[in-house]
Amino acid sequence: MTKEFETIGLIGKFGDPGVADSLHALGEHLHEHQRTVLLDEATAEVVPDCGLETVTREELGERCDLAIVIGGDGTLLNAARSLAAYKIALLGVNLGRLGFLTDISPTEMEQRLAEILAGEYVEEERFLLHCSILRDGEHISESEAFNDVVVHKWDVARMIEVESYIDGQFVNTTRSDGLIVSTPTGSTAYALSGGGPILHPTLNAMVLVPICPHTMTNRPLVVDADSTIELVVSAKGQPHAQVTCDGQINLGLFCGDRIVIRKKDKLVRLIHPVGHNHYEILRAKLSWG
Amino acid sequence: MTKEFETIGLIGKFGDPGVADSLHALGEHLHEHQRTVLLDEATAEVVPDCGLETVTREELGERCDLAIVIGGDGTLLNAARSLAAYKIALLGVNLGRLGFLTDISPTEMEQRLAEILAGEYVEEERFLLHCSILRDGEHISESEAFNDVVVHKWDVARMIEVESYIDGQFVNTTRSDGLIVSTPTGSTAYALSGGGPILHPTLNAMVLVPICPHTMTNRPLVVDADSTIELVVSAKGQPHAQVTCDGQINLGLFCGDRIVIRKKDKLVRLIHPVGHNHYEILRAKLSWG
Amino acid sequence: MTKEFETIGLIGKFGDPGVADSLHALGEHLHEHQRTVLLDEATAEVVPDCGLETVTREELGERCDLAIVIGGDGTLLNAARSLAAYKIALLGVNLGRLGFLTDISPTEMEQRLAEILAGEYVEEERFLLHCSILRDGEHISESEAFNDVVVHKWDVARMIEVESYIDGQFVNTTRSDGLIVSTPTGSTAYALSGGGPILHPTLNAMVLVPICPHTMTNRPLVVDADSTIELVVSAKGQPHAQVTCDGQINLGLFCGDRIVIRKKDKLVRLIHPVGHNHYEILRAKLSWG
Amino acid sequence: MTKEFETIGLIGKFGDPGVADSLHALGEHLHEHQRTVLLDEATAEVVPDCGLETVTREELGERCDLAIVIGGDGTLLNAARSLAAYKIALLGVNLGRLGFLTDISPTEMEQRLAEILAGEYVEEERFLLHCSILRDGEHISESEAFNDVVVHKWDVARMIEVESYIDGQFVNTTRSDGLIVSTPTGSTAYALSGGGPILHPTLNAMVLVPICPHTMTNRPLVVDADSTIELVVSAKGQPHAQVTCDGQINLGLFCGDRIVIRKKDKLVRLIHPVGHNHYEILRAKLSWG
Repeated sequence: MTKEFETIGLIGKFGDPGVADSLHALGEHLHEHQRTVLLDEATAEVVPDCGLETVTREELGERCDLAIVIGGDGTLLNAARSLAAYKIALLGVNLGRLGFLTDISPTEMEQRLAEILAGEYVEEERFLLHCSILRDGEHISESEAFNDVVVHKWDVARMIEVESYIDGQFVNTTRSDGLIVSTPTGSTAYALSGGGPILHPTLNAMVLVPICPHTMTNRPLVVDADSTIELVVSAKGQPHAQVTCDGQINLGLFCGDRIVIRKKDKLVRLIHPVGHNHYEILRAKLSWG
Repeated sequence: MTKEFETIGLIGKFGDPGVADSLHALGEHLHEHQRTVLLDEATAEVVPDCGLETVTREELGERCDLAIVIGGDGTLLNAARSLAAYKIALLGVNLGRLGFLTDISPTEMEQRLAEILAGEYVEEERFLLHCSILRDGEHISESEAFNDVVVHKWDVARMIEVESYIDGQFVNTTRSDGLIVSTPTGSTAYALSGGGPILHPTLNAMVLVPICPHTMTNRPLVVDADSTIELVVSAKGQPHAQVTCDGQINLGLFCGDRIVIRKKDKLVRLIHPVGHNHYEILRAKLSWG
Repeated sequence: MTKEFETIGLIGKFGDPGVADSLHALGEHLHEHQRTVLLDEATAEVVPDCGLETVTREELGERCDLAIVIGGDGTLLNAARSLAAYKIALLGVNLGRLGFLTDISPTEMEQRLAEILAGEYVEEERFLLHCSILRDGEHISESEAFNDVVVHKWDVARMIEVESYIDGQFVNTTRSDGLIVSTPTGSTAYALSGGGPILHPTLNAMVLVPICPHTMTNRPLVVDADSTIELVVSAKGQPHAQVTCDGQINLGLFCGDRIVIRKKDKLVRLIHPVGHNHYEILRAKLSWG
Repeated sequence: MTKEFETIGLIGKFGDPGVADSLHALGEHLHEHQRTVLLDEATAEVVPDCGLETVTREELGERCDLAIVIGGDGTLLNAARSLAAYKIALLGVNLGRLGFLTDISPTEMEQRLAEILAGEYVEEERFLLHCSILRDGEHISESEAFNDVVVHKWDVARMIEVESYIDGQFVNTTRSDGLIVSTPTGSTAYALSGGGPILHPTLNAMVLVPICPHTMTNRPLVVDADSTIELVVSAKGQPHAQVTCDGQINLGLFCGDRIVIRKKDKLVRLIHPVGHNHYEILRAKLSWG
């Protein structure tokens, strides 16, 4: 009989030696359960003496069945983007503060993990966005986002003008501080601050949220996740717009640039303990009731 | 070869003799195209001398392939609910003011209709909500809604407390003026006034919008349309809540009543002229740009 | 030398025997400080054996320098309205849950009161709204509000249409679920749920907040508190609007009725302990930071 | 008897030769009414052959009783800031598109001006904000704003953290895209896009509007205009905040910088034609009704 998750990669919060205790505990725990454990290269730099085999992120993606990510939601977003091409499941452990994606606390980590290794878990599929930028018809850059792709003004105070198209149909021209295109995963992040709705994590939809739009009827728009969204920065005035993926990757924009956003085919496989309840997390994070 | 839409029913705005001209023109036009034309009983009362065969709404539903509805969106909402059980397509003609659902103007009516009868049209599937009320476990009433099911306070100024469940999972308890459960069709109606997002009309999703919630983090929630939503009016204090479907049908509520909302299996078939563009209607109705 | 607050009235939460302990403690404490203590008639009904002189609300207003109100904000709103005509200061003691107006907790009550009786306190002036209803030019009813005057739909689901005038100038006609006219005190109550801003408690301004307006540009409007606001329920359709003051007093409305709202001349004198900090209460109540 | 507005300055939209016709017509019209007319230096550069005496902005401020500003609201904002130190009234003429501040259209310009020169006009007082920046206790720069002072993130996608103080009292720490401090004049500009209320133009108040705040209860806050507002950019992470006045003047910020915002003593005197109605402008600009 095959074991669940034979080879497991460990990824810690970037540059944070505070993950050391959890990593050591995890390493031991997994060895006790006869798993092969690989440590992410970047994590090994801040937690040097783990006694674990260290691999590049790519090798981790290729060899592992499961990546355990220790940190906040930002760490898991990063892991999901970098491992998007691989057939690997993700499990998030927080460092003490509940995250939407990192829903296992350090204190319950070993208990939950034992259950998961015994095959008692819930698997949830979520999707990433793929964003590519066309300039004069030429593809000039691309990136992935798990939360959101944001086109926003920078440097100066003036609004930007963006034309939106969905599946080739012109939607509108908004004058605003920017536009957020969010996955359900991202709907509880920046999109929520911008006034967007909460999308159930497994809903096959994206939401476009204008940031401080000049026209008050420019409201959030929820569309099928299999749509193609195109945003065109209007070819007037000075270039002062840029694209950001998950608030991390910045791509510069010229006027007239076309940002094409599509759901990535390859899904993210998120592992949760049995009894995982999305609404419980929402209630806790949003102080409902 | 069979003709498109052999038997066509005509339904006018309730109690409005102003539909007479459009009805007469439509009747003649359809006869010229060798169609059988049936007039809705309620419409015949306000436009008596049409020379058209008059039928009950049920007979209209059974015998017709297409119902042409002349009026505003409210008239089409009503027709869609009452014809929900039948295999009949709907076409909306407005009385001069563009509607989201009644997108053909009287002036272009004959031209558009000729195209549609020639088979040049777009068919769009939309869904209705089915709402049933359980009291002490007993089913006590039910209704359908094309826009929205709304649980709201009435009579007094006090907020109501409603527990929400999605697919059996507890979501939260909101204290508010009420809760809107809206289809994509209804997302541009009352739900929009309540702060909800715009859902693309063919998206398979519903949105829950709390009305003036006491807790500001109680934001609109978009869920899969195949979910079951249950709302329970909290069993405290005086009963002062009621349920409304499309702002028309009122169902009284007692404390502890359980409102179960599901997507209706039978879809609404909406006919549009070729070239129909939902975003064009949004731009016009919401004064975008 | 005269004592601060020689004669002190005690008012408990309506119909709640749970105020008994606090009342007994207060009564003893005040007697120790040689104050005359009068008990509100309605409170005496639920807490019968206090051994305190019982008076009507009117007599309490006439004879006392200070009313100590034990309960929630609703109890203090009620006391402020009923004592509006008298020269009496108000002090709010909560029953364990911090209120915006009842900011002294039962545990610190005696300590704070000793300071206040020693003359160490902060006095804040707040204003009430006076609301009168004119039908066919005739004055038919009037009331006071400390939080807000709300014109709202009832009974049915349809929006109401209300014309607003400020100092005789026509502002707009809104179609909505209703309109809130709020004092700064009320700006953290229902007006906040309706999307209104927070007004500093001593700002001389009122805010008009439309409830779920059909037109999204109908935003909250902040005007000078010395303005006269007139709201006219449009003379179309069925009468289904009513006026509520502080969510308590209901006044029925006919179409065409004119609601005239003005700041009441006589101010409310609110007593706070030294060190009272409004922002601290906001931070606690709104979970800031 | 002294004439109303003996010496009148003319200021055109910056860099726009399209103001030439209106300028020529104005110049002639004012000469016919025996007024001394001075042309703003910057305007003279784009409209060279006016035959009018050209002066610097400072000289215009010193010598004139009235400045007629031809352009959009941005042009008037600029004129108001640059003439803040002088005892000069301002009159706004738009170039065809109604402004909140430039409410006279070119077609009615001569008729309205004749009335104003005959003493038939309404004078309205509005206030500017004065903004100064302190670094390590040292005053390093200052500016004025007629609409708003905005502290906002730039360059990167991350939120900024700002502590707010009102009259020395700590209000809260917001994590957001920025904070708008707006005058009543600015409440219909950027602050409105950010979700702020509309303040009546003569209300003595300012509004703080957080831009896309992380915490949903961080709502707009309306305070007395005689308050001192201090904003402190939190001393963590990289400096990526800046201050903008009326979207024009940019002041760089370091972490720990303290932005002090006060109402400027010297008021702006805005001249309107008799019959000027602020609500009429609101209705037109916001498409009410």
